[in-house]
Amino acid sequence: MPGQDNQSQPSPTAGNVEENEDEALVWEQIKSEARQDAESEPALASYLYSTVLSHSSLARSLSFHLGNKLCSSTLLSTLLYDLFLNTFSSDPSILSAAVADLRAARYRDPACISFSHCLLNYKGFLAIQTHRLAHKLWLEDRKPLALSLQSRISDVFAVDIHPGARIGKGVLLDHATGVVIGETAVVGNNVSILHHVTLGGTGKVSGDRHPRLGDGVLIGAGATILGNVKIGAGAKIGAGSVVLIDVPPWTTAVGNPATLVGGKEKPKVHEDVPGESMDHTSFISQWSDYMI
Amino acid sequence: MPGQDNQSQPSPTAGNVEENEDEALVWEQIKSEARQDAESEPALASYLYSTVLSHSSLARSLSFHLGNKLCSSTLLSTLLYDLFLNTFSSDPSILSAAVADLRAARYRDPACISFSHCLLNYKGFLAIQTHRLAHKLWLEDRKPLALSLQSRISDVFAVDIHPGARIGKGVLLDHATGVVIGETAVVGNNVSILHHVTLGGTGKVSGDRHPRLGDGVLIGAGATILGNVKIGAGAKIGAGSVVLIDVPPWTTAVGNPATLVGGKEKPKVHEDVPGESMDHTSFISQWSDYMI
Amino acid sequence: MPGQDNQSQPSPTAGNVEENEDEALVWEQIKSEARQDAESEPALASYLYSTVLSHSSLARSLSFHLGNKLCSSTLLSTLLYDLFLNTFSSDPSILSAAVADLRAARYRDPACISFSHCLLNYKGFLAIQTHRLAHKLWLEDRKPLALSLQSRISDVFAVDIHPGARIGKGVLLDHATGVVIGETAVVGNNVSILHHVTLGGTGKVSGDRHPRLGDGVLIGAGATILGNVKIGAGAKIGAGSVVLIDVPPWTTAVGNPATLVGGKEKPKVHEDVPGESMDHTSFISQWSDYMI
Amino acid sequence: MPGQDNQSQPSPTAGNVEENEDEALVWEQIKSEARQDAESEPALASYLYSTVLSHSSLARSLSFHLGNKLCSSTLLSTLLYDLFLNTFSSDPSILSAAVADLRAARYRDPACISFSHCLLNYKGFLAIQTHRLAHKLWLEDRKPLALSLQSRISDVFAVDIHPGARIGKGVLLDHATGVVIGETAVVGNNVSILHHVTLGGTGKVSGDRHPRLGDGVLIGAGATILGNVKIGAGAKIGAGSVVLIDVPPWTTAVGNPATLVGGKEKPKVHEDVPGESMDHTSFISQWSDYMI
Amino acid sequence: MPGQDNQSQPSPTAGNVEENEDEALVWEQIKSEARQDAESEPALASYLYSTVLSHSSLARSLSFHLGNKLCSSTLLSTLLYDLFLNTFSSDPSILSAAVADLRAARYRDPACISFSHCLLNYKGFLAIQTHRLAHKLWLEDRKPLALSLQSRISDVFAVDIHPGARIGKGVLLDHATGVVIGETAVVGNNVSILHHVTLGGTGKVSGDRHPRLGDGVLIGAGATILGNVKIGAGAKIGAGSVVLIDVPPWTTAVGNPATLVGGKEKPKVHEDVPGESMDHTSFISQWSDYMI
Amino acid sequence: MPGQDNQSQPSPTAGNVEENEDEALVWEQIKSEARQDAESEPALASYLYSTVLSHSSLARSLSFHLGNKLCSSTLLSTLLYDLFLNTFSSDPSILSAAVADLRAARYRDPACISFSHCLLNYKGFLAIQTHRLAHKLWLEDRKPLALSLQSRISDVFAVDIHPGARIGKGVLLDHATGVVIGETAVVGNNVSILHHVTLGGTGKVSGDRHPRLGDGVLIGAGATILGNVKIGAGAKIGAGSVVLIDVPPWTTAVGNPATLVGGKEKPKVHEDVPGESMDHTSFISQWSDYMI
Repeated sequence: MPGQDNQSQPSPTAGNVEENEDEALVWEQIKSEARQDAESEPALASYLYSTVLSHSSLARSLSFHLGNKLCSSTLLSTLLYDLFLNTFSSDPSILSAAVADLRAARYRDPACISFSHCLLNYKGFLAIQTHRLAHKLWLEDRKPLALSLQSRISDVFAVDIHPGARIGKGVLLDHATGVVIGETAVVGNNVSILHHVTLGGTGKVSGDRHPRLGDGVLIGAGATILGNVKIGAGAKIGAGSVVLIDVPPWTTAVGNPATLVGGKEKPKVHEDVPGESMDHTSFISQWSDYMI
Repeated sequence: MPGQDNQSQPSPTAGNVEENEDEALVWEQIKSEARQDAESEPALASYLYSTVLSHSSLARSLSFHLGNKLCSSTLLSTLLYDLFLNTFSSDPSILSAAVADLRAARYRDPACISFSHCLLNYKGFLAIQTHRLAHKLWLEDRKPLALSLQSRISDVFAVDIHPGARIGKGVLLDHATGVVIGETAVVGNNVSILHHVTLGGTGKVSGDRHPRLGDGVLIGAGATILGNVKIGAGAKIGAGSVVLIDVPPWTTAVGNPATLVGGKEKPKVHEDVPGESMDHTSFISQWSDYMI
Repeated sequence: MPGQDNQSQPSPTAGNVEENEDEALVWEQIKSEARQDAESEPALASYLYSTVLSHSSLARSLSFHLGNKLCSSTLLSTLLYDLFLNTFSSDPSILSAAVADLRAARYRDPACISFSHCLLNYKGFLAIQTHRLAHKLWLEDRKPLALSLQSRISDVFAVDIHPGARIGKGVLLDHATGVVIGETAVVGNNVSILHHVTLGGTGKVSGDRHPRLGDGVLIGAGATILGNVKIGAGAKIGAGSVVLIDVPPWTTAVGNPATLVGGKEKPKVHEDVPGESMDHTSFISQWSDYMI
Repeated sequence: MPGQDNQSQPSPTAGNVEENEDEALVWEQIKSEARQDAESEPALASYLYSTVLSHSSLARSLSFHLGNKLCSSTLLSTLLYDLFLNTFSSDPSILSAAVADLRAARYRDPACISFSHCLLNYKGFLAIQTHRLAHKLWLEDRKPLALSLQSRISDVFAVDIHPGARIGKGVLLDHATGVVIGETAVVGNNVSILHHVTLGGTGKVSGDRHPRLGDGVLIGAGATILGNVKIGAGAKIGAGSVVLIDVPPWTTAVGNPATLVGGKEKPKVHEDVPGESMDHTSFISQWSDYMI
Repeated sequence: MPGQDNQSQPSPTAGNVEENEDEALVWEQIKSEARQDAESEPALASYLYSTVLSHSSLARSLSFHLGNKLCSSTLLSTLLYDLFLNTFSSDPSILSAAVADLRAARYRDPACISFSHCLLNYKGFLAIQTHRLAHKLWLEDRKPLALSLQSRISDVFAVDIHPGARIGKGVLLDHATGVVIGETAVVGNNVSILHHVTLGGTGKVSGDRHPRLGDGVLIGAGATILGNVKIGAGAKIGAGSVVLIDVPPWTTAVGNPATLVGGKEKPKVHEDVPGESMDHTSFISQWSDYMI
Repeated sequence: MPGQDNQSQPSPTAGNVEENEDEALVWEQIKSEARQDAESEPALASYLYSTVLSHSSLARSLSFHLGNKLCSSTLLSTLLYDLFLNTFSSDPSILSAAVADLRAARYRDPACISFSHCLLNYKGFLAIQTHRLAHKLWLEDRKPLALSLQSRISDVFAVDIHPGARIGKGVLLDHATGVVIGETAVVGNNVSILHHVTLGGTGKVSGDRHPRLGDGVLIGAGATILGNVKIGAGAKIGAGSVVLIDVPPWTTAVGNPATLVGGKEKPKVHEDVPGESMDHTSFISQWSDYMI
């Protein structure tokens, strides 16, 4: 599952030129959107200037926005701002992952009308970016700070991602409220996860005890996946499903308890990438039990 | 489904006298409750005076309360206060819908001991009132501001209602945490929705892609309804159900995948209005599978 | 179910010496952890000093932390601080229950690396401690204040516990987001409840209408238990289950609708205490339907 | 002294059309300045939008700005905003006095480069506008609220004006820090007062015990005027002077104790209006003692 | 000068019963005033409840008010509240001095219409109470904390009192802005000091280098007293005076440089206590130079 | 007057190595003091960690502290923090001037017990550092931002320095409340200025209209210097003096109106540097009029 490996051991050279260009394009687009919104909506102009237009880079804008969103009376915004800014500067892979996440939201979610909308308003997006900082701190053995950030994400966004979890690029947490991702979970690239999804543990005291999701996976709202199970690349998990066993690549699992569409022996295999197509419901016809 | 139509195209004349009287009665009741609470509980007196007793109308009290609840370091309370107040003044149907929602909570939820309790403490109530403002802005094509409000509701109350959604009057979001309602969803009058309920989309890029709920519907906790399906007037959806197909009026659907109580051919039909009676569990005896 | 009774009518003498010692030990441990973290992580030192190290007792530290977490522009932190401090002073059983909860998190949750981590970061822990204050106020008929606290817990932690609910000692709300516990619910000692769990009502207007959980129960993520049902001591409810009928002690119920593992007539009985072992998934092999 | 009388008993009809036009012109100018500043200085754009550009009138902009400047943890900005807005709406003379004060600062103070600079940054200007609200409340016998506002002005701006004091139009408090104006003081129109100036009492228990300043008076920095004395129209008081006796119109008093320039019998009389020309020092040559 | 000695070495037994009664009377009066104000002025009711009416004692009300006034983003209100409350509890002489100061303001200042007005709004009063805490900390060699409080008083109230200064009881700082009192200064009982007064040092590196004021002294606005000089009991210093040499008891010094009214050899001696009568100006007739 | 010229046109190379070393020494000292204070005073530890100990350089600590001190609801701390940090990075002369000011306070003011005390608590020090940023912005023609900072200094510290004023290094504003320094004023190196001092204008519409102070000057409390006058190097101005004419180097001017000690023709000349010795009062014996 190369997606995750890339994420936690970013190669700082390959593709950087391209990524920098991409980041610059997205940032220009965000500023252009914010400028237009500020003009058409004076009540929002102040907010857009302080969060976007007054900043010289996406890294600064995002650091500022997260610092102000996550601060509390005991964790000052200036401290958080500093922390984010230093991280984005020292590890460019974190910012390029953020750009990939912006693109994911913009192109997969029909309700996402602009990059700036995602940057400013998507709690799933903001939670993941904070998680990337927390994860970096976790790997550097700065656990108390990493756990403090996890706690702030959980308080502010109602999204609970353990700083040990490894999350790929181009990931969309749509709506995001209630998502729980455990310590040893792995999420591949181009995965889409709806709200209330749990990638939970088994209660074993240590070691790998959380799910591993391959690239391009789609997890429907309220699905619960527990234990050290593999959800193969391109697999699709129906809303409300409860999954405790491996799901093969490019298949679909639905129900509580979950079963494979088409049956265990000869499951139906699809060809689109569900994490990107976000097709939540077209498998209905294959699964007769969904018929009322 | 006339309920929704009324909501988004309020007739500003019919019934206004009556509604104004009703609003006045409820506001008097709220002030009387707050006065009594302030006397019996000095620790709370300050809070009750600033949120209720110091205001000359329900519109001002609610605007003040929402402005302070939803403000952030970049969206000042004074700006939000202004926005709410202007809206309540220019569109009386929004306030009369709020009054209907207060009555819904007061009479349907046994845990709701007073109007003021709902006004001050019910995040579902406060989320819907903010949504009504966001929806109005959405219809006026002030999308960036509408989306900002959606984001604040989601951060502060963990309730995510797209500003495009059309919500009727007399609606109760009980407990409310985790409710997600998509852009083209429609919710009728006198509907009750428990927490963790999703009225979600199908991933299709545009057009109607979310559920439409008739008047008087009751949706149990954690139910997931996906796609452009119709939940007929007076229908009841059991807790934890996953529904992807139309449910006929006055019937009950339960389970994951959901089935109709009494069977698809001859479903059992009830006569009470479940959105008002809030009867979550009496259908157990009809649905043998619920028996452990 | 003696656990609950103890909780709402604490015997202020029995075991106090022991409990005081235990509290002292845990507080010493918390300070030692915080001291070490402050040294290794300067960015967090300020936070740790203000929340832990500058205080002379666990009661003060917890009161300070909760006052700052739960305050709003209309409920000042100083007021809340006072309220918590007075309660911890006048009713030592509340603090000793907090210590038991700290131990529960520390020993049951493999992701909980220290007492101070739980004290500062676990929203489930913080929600329960606030609930204990709210419950005490509720019993003293200070309902408006109790309901205000419920509302703040729901806004800040996305955990909704009615102040009337009776909660035992040594209780763990893991992840906690989305937990809803109704007015007449009872939760025994040493119970573990995962996120998104509902102990909900039936809509009947008054009287006992919520579940009663015996000691040592484990409720998996997203489970919904509705009505005045008894979940016997040591029972285990699988993730995503919907339960509307009594579950016998030491048995396991899974699925939507829930069924007993081993069957209704001769359910399989386990011997460990699931609320303590946190074994979420080992019952898979007994429940063939979970097989994909 | 008609200036003061006008101020406390404004004739609401005469000259209103003209004043409204004047207000509109100044407000247009302020918005134009703010727009230009926001463009040239992105770091400030957010501030300028929230304080000026997002508002539909000078009254709203000023109310917003003062509400945010004067609020505290126990006096919420929304409450103050409401109070200012209601007052500006119900008493147009207060807003027209503010416009006259803006003009005074703009044309008399060479350091005042724009109307918006005065509106946003001049604590003397902001203190007087708040005083006008406090004075109105005082006359309506709402003394506790009037005194609270006095206290906030003193905390925030270090300017202490008793709400009973009557202040004319076109008044400039330059630098303003440390100005103290007592309960029965009267300040005419077009007066300029530098910082650290005291218009103080005599300690008599009641009745008129503070200075009365005629129109066009100029009081230099640090001057102390005590007791029920008259400073005649167009008089000039040198910096650091201590005055306890009447000063005739159009004369100059300097020194501690103060003496008239030119002598008590035949004091030198000037012809310019010192409150408008702000000539602080040209009288040196007439007062030989100032020579070092 | 026994006043000062009493202040810094309070005898905790003598007169305590009487003082407690006095405190109780004043506190009852304050609550009664606040209750009446809250009723007549709803806009202020919230403020009055949170600062006065919700508290069980003057010590709590004052601690709460000062905690909220002096807090900053890095010095939390809860920390300050605790500090004040502990001090008032452990050293009753500090609270009884506060009561004497309340009486001083109420009876000497004609603009002080109630005890609650002074308690809530008089920055001089609030600055002195904070100083008493800082002074106590200074004597306990907790210098960094004492100096932090000095800094907060100077920021918030523009009053700069070194924590080493010894201040008696029944002291009134009228208007208070700009008062500066140095480290080794001593202020007797029943002294009144107007705004902008300096009790300053001489620049000598250490030791006694600031003024010592006897009981009943009155210092006019803007007076500057420098060096280790004695201002005898009952002496009066005119506004704007500059004093660098001892002033005998019951005499009056005026001017820059200051001279004794009546002359150095046979100064005029008065019989009232100027610190209590607050007679600022009646000495004019004795000092011909004040004549313009 | 080379001091000022250096200040506004810093030579970035000469002496930099030395200055960097000096800065490093002072910063080490500050951290060591803060560490010791944090240990001895737990109540302050949090504050010291967040303002000093958690930072990697003096520039970051000072930027953080000023950002939090000067922020308002419309000027966020993160914006100010950024602004300060960028300035300290791009113009090292500003930080080295801050170090010189720290040394000035530490060695001249007997009440200044440590560098960290000055850094954290001296409003005069903090006002000057903010002014240096404002001055730099002024020279870059970013006037609106420069004037906003002036306004914040005036609100927060009651110190009003026009951003156009040129201030040297090693300057001490002792107590600082009420200091006013005009647009074209110039303050040399190693100057000490007490509180309430005015370096004011003459009301002329433009051009040089404020005082110019040479190196080593000392200005006593409450002195008022008006107009384009020169105060020669090493001159001393007595407290409360009013000066409107040039004062020769190394002489002393006292009184209102000010006269030279020793007389205009043969003024007494001193040899110490009064701005450094801070000798406020030893000239008494030379000026007989000060004798009472």
